[in-house]
Amino acid sequence: MNFTAETSLNGVIERDFTVGEVPGVLFSPRSGSGPASLVLMAHSGGQHKRAPGIVGRAHHFVTGYGFHAAAIDAPGHGDRPRTTEDEQRIAVLRRAQAAGEPIGPIIVELHTYLAERAVPEWQVTLDALQELPQIGADGRVGFWGIMQGTGIGVPLTAVEPRIIAAVFGCLGHESLVEAAAQITVPIEFLLQWDDELLDRRSGLALFDAFASKEKTLHANAGGHFEVPRFEVDSAARFFARHLGQVDTSPA
Amino acid sequence: MNFTAETSLNGVIERDFTVGEVPGVLFSPRSGSGPASLVLMAHSGGQHKRAPGIVGRAHHFVTGYGFHAAAIDAPGHGDRPRTTEDEQRIAVLRRAQAAGEPIGPIIVELHTYLAERAVPEWQVTLDALQELPQIGADGRVGFWGIMQGTGIGVPLTAVEPRIIAAVFGCLGHESLVEAAAQITVPIEFLLQWDDELLDRRSGLALFDAFASKEKTLHANAGGHFEVPRFEVDSAARFFARHLGQVDTSPA
Repeated sequence: MNFTAETSLNGVIERDFTVGEVPGVLFSPRSGSGPASLVLMAHSGGQHKRAPGIVGRAHHFVTGYGFHAAAIDAPGHGDRPRTTEDEQRIAVLRRAQAAGEPIGPIIVELHTYLAERAVPEWQVTLDALQELPQIGADGRVGFWGIMQGTGIGVPLTAVEPRIIAAVFGCLGHESLVEAAAQITVPIEFLLQWDDELLDRRSGLALFDAFASKEKTLHANAGGHFEVPRFEVDSAARFFARHLGQVDTSPA
Repeated sequence: MNFTAETSLNGVIERDFTVGEVPGVLFSPRSGSGPASLVLMAHSGGQHKRAPGIVGRAHHFVTGYGFHAAAIDAPGHGDRPRTTEDEQRIAVLRRAQAAGEPIGPIIVELHTYLAERAVPEWQVTLDALQELPQIGADGRVGFWGIMQGTGIGVPLTAVEPRIIAAVFGCLGHESLVEAAAQITVPIEFLLQWDDELLDRRSGLALFDAFASKEKTLHANAGGHFEVPRFEVDSAARFFARHLGQVDTSPA
């Protein structure tokens, strides 16, 4: 892990890093030493590691709850180059959007394609983050990601035992049901009740598929991009319940 | 309104009262003067104004958020006498339960029957509460009630403009859909995803029916009586967003 820049803003230390070819940013509290609680944050489609929805939540997690939060660019997103196949798939999506055709099946295939690369990238990034003295290997790890972040996060959480709690939502692929059925950690799942891009039954079916004993659906009135602001703090409190404070006193 | 007893426990003043023939209890913070925020709390079927689920939440609302909370016994419940018809309806319910027959339709009729009396009782009780100097007529009023509390609370909130936010849930009568469609205030709606007594689709249909621009469904894994503990604070924070602090400074 190479750190390339460090800034401090409103009590949050932001450090740009790369792990291999993957660029990321780590949001940390000013003080504290490991083991610490860490939230992995995956951005939405067409977004990047510093999208407002990521930075705003990361700052809330850090300043309100003392967590660390880490975001990386998904393959072909943010500061990462696009492959020819990335370009082709995006062109297909754009054409369907312009023609007013249903984009659901295209999105499903795109997420599956991205997750194949993003899941191992997240695992290597987590390895590197846990080597940092201020985080450590014994801290608790959560995952936050809606929309494309869920398309990557569900297969990641299914295979990554270090993730012990996750916030997903605003997605409902049938293709994710199998991975969801392997997940048993506590889940908070967001769904927009009047989502113009996602079939409500599909979202409810994905929530239903998680094998978790503790899972909560938060379905809010409003469209796809209208997740209410109060869900930011709700997610933070969900993580606080499950990641909590790690005991750093000597045994 | 007659006060019949007063106790103080863990920073909460509890005052038993009667309004006409209806007995109730008012939970208040030790200090503060009106106008104050008030949560009306309706208990579940077969329960009463001091059921653990009422008292525990009321104390959390008072000590954590400075609200007042008021609960009354529903008709034929708690300290109130049962009419012959009350007895007959309960006997019908008990027989169906003992025989393992579906109780849904019986519960619907029972709630409709109770709501006819309970709705005006709540309105008279609210009139009396707002005459108290420590509450006042300008404070904001919320309603909390799940199961039978929803069976009474939905028709109450539909006709009572003083209620500006409500928590309902764990119920799904088609008979409530019409009243729900008249409700436009913010709603938090609880649903148990694995409810053995309530059809999931019926609960989702009731949530869908509210005309509220802000409404949130909290669907949790677990059975009818397994509403998670963290929903207590979630409800309190919902009321804090909407009832908030009333400005008592001179204009």
